[in-house]
Amino acid sequence: MTLNVLFSAPPQRWDAFRAPLNQALQEAGIEADLRTDHPPEKVDYIVHAPNGGLSDFTPFTRAKAVLSLWAGVEDIVANPTLKIPLTRMVDSGLAEGMVEWVSGHVLRHHLGMDAHICRKDARWDPVVPPLARHRRVGMLGLGELGTACARALAGLNFNVSGWSRRPRQVEGITCLHGKAGLEEILSHSEIIVLLLPLTPATENLLDERRLALLPRGGVIINPGRGALIDDKALLAALDSGQVAHATLDVFRTEPLPPEHPFWTHPQVTVTPHIASETRAETASRVVAENIRRAEAGEPLLFLVDRAAGY
Amino acid sequence: MTLNVLFSAPPQRWDAFRAPLNQALQEAGIEADLRTDHPPEKVDYIVHAPNGGLSDFTPFTRAKAVLSLWAGVEDIVANPTLKIPLTRMVDSGLAEGMVEWVSGHVLRHHLGMDAHICRKDARWDPVVPPLARHRRVGMLGLGELGTACARALAGLNFNVSGWSRRPRQVEGITCLHGKAGLEEILSHSEIIVLLLPLTPATENLLDERRLALLPRGGVIINPGRGALIDDKALLAALDSGQVAHATLDVFRTEPLPPEHPFWTHPQVTVTPHIASETRAETASRVVAENIRRAEAGEPLLFLVDRAAGY
Repeated sequence: MTLNVLFSAPPQRWDAFRAPLNQALQEAGIEADLRTDHPPEKVDYIVHAPNGGLSDFTPFTRAKAVLSLWAGVEDIVANPTLKIPLTRMVDSGLAEGMVEWVSGHVLRHHLGMDAHICRKDARWDPVVPPLARHRRVGMLGLGELGTACARALAGLNFNVSGWSRRPRQVEGITCLHGKAGLEEILSHSEIIVLLLPLTPATENLLDERRLALLPRGGVIINPGRGALIDDKALLAALDSGQVAHATLDVFRTEPLPPEHPFWTHPQVTVTPHIASETRAETASRVVAENIRRAEAGEPLLFLVDRAAGY
Repeated sequence: MTLNVLFSAPPQRWDAFRAPLNQALQEAGIEADLRTDHPPEKVDYIVHAPNGGLSDFTPFTRAKAVLSLWAGVEDIVANPTLKIPLTRMVDSGLAEGMVEWVSGHVLRHHLGMDAHICRKDARWDPVVPPLARHRRVGMLGLGELGTACARALAGLNFNVSGWSRRPRQVEGITCLHGKAGLEEILSHSEIIVLLLPLTPATENLLDERRLALLPRGGVIINPGRGALIDDKALLAALDSGQVAHATLDVFRTEPLPPEHPFWTHPQVTVTPHIASETRAETASRVVAENIRRAEAGEPLLFLVDRAAGY
């Protein structure tokens, strides 16, 4: 029997996914009718991005699962109309791009590149940067993305610590956890990278008190979620010199409103949510595999724990 | 018998090397009197940097070897007063710093960071960069530094080719050599990194004709030696758009003169010869080991081939 698969995401994602997702479904042996406009009551599976306009799941009476194209599911996890299993995206292409973006911006701050890139005068001041082995980097979040980035940074010789809510072990990384671990990692990291899920427990994680724990002149890199940081506390910490620079890829409101002070603050670099994205080819295989599993009665990959929020 | 070791380098290098070099000599079992001012005729070994002021080796009648602190020896290799063996520096700390600088600047150009770092307006234009696996990087030079950097870039998933004068093999890298190999690597590399020694054969290697072989809009990163590139040809290629950007750490004249057009060209990033430097701790061990070898009648490490020029 042909399965009706609804693709609910912005039009440019449909352009990117249509061919590879059809191919991945075929390769998984699934006969599917993939469309952006099935009648709700006939849909079997929903491939979903929160910015595709679909947020009321009530009419989808026979749908068996919602398969998110996003790694972060905070916009949908608490949706009261969603009564069926929800999976989040764990895409090797997403992790690959994230590793590149995080490695690049950590090296940028480590090497002090901005002073040369934005130089205005002909000043020859040959100060060689320290070696990465003497630079302490703290990775907040040791999920798929955080672990991949922490490993890559350790491979570049950085002195890397990682923090997660629950205890984790990652080879080559000093792993900390819990509230005491958070204070410890903040107090000794010159560069902090945020790759945590956004949950009620992580919202405003970097507030005034925790920003004050960082070594003076620390750098914050946030490719995770905007609301992990208290914007006002960050601006105050930047103005006081407590935080030397923030490179931010994600924001409470996206696009970041033109009047937001982050745009013009000299110690803030704004990148427009480009650190990484789900790549159609690799992500399509994950979606197809989950539909295959659901049909075969096997456990779904990357099933969201609705209570934990990720 | 105590050996008289002359340290001839700028004063700040003496500050950095005095303690670790004395310690390394002691650990190598060498009784040495390390100074910056021995009478020339009493000197046994010369630890040398070309910018330390010593270029006439005639009075050093009993000296057994000149041990350079620099990886590049083009300023001394043809010195007619130098009749004794010359070694160049191969320092693990130098390679480590170079890998970080090269990885950082390749990622910077790969990710298109400058557009965000130097942004003036509040423009939200979310174009996600391609993955490194689809970015072709060419490494010119597969010596100690070039090989270390090529390996690191391959570890970051870049599609890396390398070129050397003579055939080489490096795992994970497509290795090319000779004149035809040079044309091939230039014609397919979006980012070119120069880590070649400066010799009569490599001077002006990137001239007008070879710059024209690059894919239009390519990027050049030069942490090797300034004279590998024809400055005028590079400026013309930048102005025509053939080369999109050049990040240059080394120059024909250093410090780069304030009136040089590189300083103000919008497509040029000048860094003041800081990509890497010999690190006192690791380099001191190399110097001490070579003095030990010379005294024991063993072959010296990193002996310069005066005919080849490196």
